[in-house]
Amino acid sequence: MQPFANRECVTRVLEGAILGNMFFEPSTRTRVSFGCAWNLLGGEVRETAEIKTSAIAKGESFYDTARVLSGYSDVIVMRHQTEGSVEEFASASRVPVINGGDGSNEHPSQALLDLYTIRKEVSDLGKGVDNLRIALIGDLRFGRAVHSLCRLLSLYDSVHFTLVSPPELSLGEEYVKAIQEAGHEVVESTDLHDGISHADILYVTRTQEERFPNQKEAEKYKGLFRLNQSIYTEYCEPNTVIMHPLPRDSRGNANELDNDLNENPNLAIFRQTDNGVLIRMALFSLILDVADNIQESAKDVGWYTAKRF
Amino acid sequence: MQPFANRECVTRVLEGAILGNMFFEPSTRTRVSFGCAWNLLGGEVRETAEIKTSAIAKGESFYDTARVLSGYSDVIVMRHQTEGSVEEFASASRVPVINGGDGSNEHPSQALLDLYTIRKEVSDLGKGVDNLRIALIGDLRFGRAVHSLCRLLSLYDSVHFTLVSPPELSLGEEYVKAIQEAGHEVVESTDLHDGISHADILYVTRTQEERFPNQKEAEKYKGLFRLNQSIYTEYCEPNTVIMHPLPRDSRGNANELDNDLNENPNLAIFRQTDNGVLIRMALFSLILDVADNIQESAKDVGWYTAKRF
Amino acid sequence: MQPFANRECVTRVLEGAILGNMFFEPSTRTRVSFGCAWNLLGGEVRETAEIKTSAIAKGESFYDTARVLSGYSDVIVMRHQTEGSVEEFASASRVPVINGGDGSNEHPSQALLDLYTIRKEVSDLGKGVDNLRIALIGDLRFGRAVHSLCRLLSLYDSVHFTLVSPPELSLGEEYVKAIQEAGHEVVESTDLHDGISHADILYVTRTQEERFPNQKEAEKYKGLFRLNQSIYTEYCEPNTVIMHPLPRDSRGNANELDNDLNENPNLAIFRQTDNGVLIRMALFSLILDVADNIQESAKDVGWYTAKRF
Repeated sequence: MQPFANRECVTRVLEGAILGNMFFEPSTRTRVSFGCAWNLLGGEVRETAEIKTSAIAKGESFYDTARVLSGYSDVIVMRHQTEGSVEEFASASRVPVINGGDGSNEHPSQALLDLYTIRKEVSDLGKGVDNLRIALIGDLRFGRAVHSLCRLLSLYDSVHFTLVSPPELSLGEEYVKAIQEAGHEVVESTDLHDGISHADILYVTRTQEERFPNQKEAEKYKGLFRLNQSIYTEYCEPNTVIMHPLPRDSRGNANELDNDLNENPNLAIFRQTDNGVLIRMALFSLILDVADNIQESAKDVGWYTAKRF
Repeated sequence: MQPFANRECVTRVLEGAILGNMFFEPSTRTRVSFGCAWNLLGGEVRETAEIKTSAIAKGESFYDTARVLSGYSDVIVMRHQTEGSVEEFASASRVPVINGGDGSNEHPSQALLDLYTIRKEVSDLGKGVDNLRIALIGDLRFGRAVHSLCRLLSLYDSVHFTLVSPPELSLGEEYVKAIQEAGHEVVESTDLHDGISHADILYVTRTQEERFPNQKEAEKYKGLFRLNQSIYTEYCEPNTVIMHPLPRDSRGNANELDNDLNENPNLAIFRQTDNGVLIRMALFSLILDVADNIQESAKDVGWYTAKRF
Repeated sequence: MQPFANRECVTRVLEGAILGNMFFEPSTRTRVSFGCAWNLLGGEVRETAEIKTSAIAKGESFYDTARVLSGYSDVIVMRHQTEGSVEEFASASRVPVINGGDGSNEHPSQALLDLYTIRKEVSDLGKGVDNLRIALIGDLRFGRAVHSLCRLLSLYDSVHFTLVSPPELSLGEEYVKAIQEAGHEVVESTDLHDGISHADILYVTRTQEERFPNQKEAEKYKGLFRLNQSIYTEYCEPNTVIMHPLPRDSRGNANELDNDLNENPNLAIFRQTDNGVLIRMALFSLILDVADNIQESAKDVGWYTAKRF
């Protein structure tokens, strides 16, 4: 997918296909990333960017919404603030549905791009995902990207998880159990410095304030774990990779990942989002069974393109 | 239009044409349906999904908005919460304008898809629209889909209308008069069981709560007429077709059309929305004079397609 | 660009290219105009129509947003309510960024279409931009279109500026100074009748109420300068061109440009917005280096087209 995402060539392999990009919860990054991936394969996008413009606000069931919307498009990507909503929606849909994030439950396409990023980053260091040491930091309770990533990493061998969070925002027991039952080691900690040493990957997350009962409750947990260059230099091993599902909260009271890390070559956060386009193109290609036709359909790009990757 | 909507083949007959999909009132279904129909013909869609993002909120007249937007696109679909707004808009537009719903006034493309559905459903039973017996149920005062459908059905011969609603939400006198003057029979009722017997078509509607002065006022009328499978079995003739312009309100206090009807083969509500794509493709094709070119422009679909119809 | 904007022919020169149309402040006109211009060149549009759906609301910095979004598209158009935001964003973006309006600071693409319109309108009268007499009327303090237009006009010779505004909404000192230092004459006035006589161009603006601390404060300044046909006839020279960046506020308490001017052939406001499509197509063509390929890529239009220009 890389030459297409990088505008070295163009494919129209999905010309005429329609993506239903149904985001019933605010999103720019994931919404645009999916839409862009689809456009890069040549398809058209119909979109919903918020709940208010939706019949769900008028009392429509997910069953009905799914039956209706699946008459319009070839694939649906759905985000919704309710846990389990996408699964319920998918069971009534007549076309494939991709979970673009359902409340604090799962965010599987993020986990796929995270896994792809981890593989690429550590392979440059001569390592693989087996035996990986990863520290997950911050709001592990509501962070759906973390939940999905734990599931994926559990498919590998002997991953060492360090979970750094305030006790109230620790990773749900069912996730911890699943990791352990898959044969991996889990260490829980409330100390950042301790947690980040001896890790290959730091996976920092934002306090998911939109999941808290009120803003005041969320504020208690913001800024508890702040990573910056001097802490990195003092506590991390050389070439420890820094990841974050983004957006990072750069406001003074949060600032979980300081801007002074922007020049650190191990900061992989923008490589992550760039990889998101590739992963979503690959997902669409597999679902619509066009992976084998993309290369042969490639055409030259006829306009100026900036260097991206 | 069916092979294209059903992804059996692809056309690009409107390649380069732009639809201005201007929804100044919340909508997913109708907005996406129009956009999808346009995309299936090969055109591009520029869209507005709510009033706030619009210059109308800054005091712009419909005249100005129409003059401006009609410089951008080949056709405009407009929805707005004010009765008559689309007509005013259309009179100043330099390109064709389709009414996507103006307040409680009209929703003509819905009526076209409803009529198409009625014809298809009853023709399977060996009947036509002439001599049809239809029961319109619920909020007939604010339901714009009903208003437009009554107009269309009045063009046929000897249709028998049964109007079932609370007195406060009965069909406007001007509509009743127009139906009668066109030579059709109208019976008004406040009793559901009585109203649904001897009908070929039940057309159930949602209480249009967004048209009421406040939520409390709307709540009075929700759930007054509830159709479910046992009522259907007891009072309806076999093969009575159930329709609804959707969304149906499935919340407990409304539930005008129970989920236990979902397995009833006479429930035509999802065939209705699927037909909406066909009807809107046909509308665009006629307006832009490409109906004769579509077949010859057909190309094979190159990706996996789910069965839809 | 005119034959393409006017649907005399079609080009797909940007087929496969993606525009990131990022509007973090409400807009229909400018947003759709940019999107339409891009579509007319054959590209696809990914869009954000308001701040709420954005990660910026979750504390993301412009730097991060720019790094992320520039991985998705070939060009970004950005509008934001904060002065200087687009510049900050552009410095972190990996693809070209066009300012679609940043608070009360600048709106350069509007100024380009205004300049193009001025040149066309006065050339019909045998004049050029050098020695032009222009009256800028209304909210010159917050009107970003005015700010950008003053900069552009200052590149010409001996332009005569008459600035008509209430003292509290007068053009910022730095803009006045820049105009004067470029060798142009500036006269400030609080009297409409005086200001509009001896002008070639009247450039009327709306009170930018969204920039005021509250609605009440804005109301003070609405309707202070109202132009209508009888004032035009009495005070203006024949063929004085009337312009407005739109939307004009047509509510009774504002009505800066009366509807009775709609039949006046010198009212150029809709020619302005039509020109916006051409200018934005030209901008994209230059940035993406395809200006020379457009003509040779032209194909016939296969559908009915309304007369627009």
